[in-house]
Amino acid sequence: MRDKRRPGSDVKMVLVLRGELRLTPGKAAVQAAHAAVLLAEEAERRKLPWLEPWRAGGAKKIALVVPSLEELEQLRRKAVARGIPFVIVEDAGLTEVPAGTRTCLGLGPAPGAELDAITGDLDLL
Amino acid sequence: MRDKRRPGSDVKMVLVLRGELRLTPGKAAVQAAHAAVLLAEEAERRKLPWLEPWRAGGAKKIALVVPSLEELEQLRRKAVARGIPFVIVEDAGLTEVPAGTRTCLGLGPAPGAELDAITGDLDLL
Repeated sequence: MRDKRRPGSDVKMVLVLRGELRLTPGKAAVQAAHAAVLLAEEAERRKLPWLEPWRAGGAKKIALVVPSLEELEQLRRKAVARGIPFVIVEDAGLTEVPAGTRTCLGLGPAPGAELDAITGDLDLL
Repeated sequence: MRDKRRPGSDVKMVLVLRGELRLTPGKAAVQAAHAAVLLAEEAERRKLPWLEPWRAGGAKKIALVVPSLEELEQLRRKAVARGIPFVIVEDAGLTEVPAGTRTCLGLGPAPGAELDAITGDLDLL
């Protein structure tokens, strides 16, 4: 549901986790948080145009899931092709997964329509 | 487990969710991500001393859980008393909880020992 009252309310981040890793909710939350912080830092550093509209619209985020690393990589390639900012989170591997495991793809901030075009068919985490 | 090889590797953020809200993993991940981004922005804005050591140490985060709003508030008061940076996330309430519900307390970045003193007995999310 979009909130039409606030400017930038359709600008969002999408945080895509690998479902087949079967991370605990806490571990998944930490990976999503890593991705969101990195995307915000990168947008700040590169002075990307959607950062301020995203903040003004409530810093909207959504967490979705893919069933495999291959689909995460496909999604990353689609983001590259469309010029959508992205980060890949690699886990330090101290607990649930081996070091260097790619756990999460973060996308945005970008307009909802841009993101929905490549992530609109994914399930919610 | 602390990684002694990197400077600042014991500096972390703690993201505390309210377990009794029974958020979906995706919703919990988004609340944690909100908290982490707000803490990082606030640390940047206030030029807090633990931001750079935290980044240098791998931007460590952990997600924990409390069983009630009251315990979340107690924890916030302890953070205030110790001068630990904090944020409270209020959900916009479009999906799982009423608007304005306080869903998450974010703490840090701060040294692990400081945070463990007030969160060390909490369960992992």
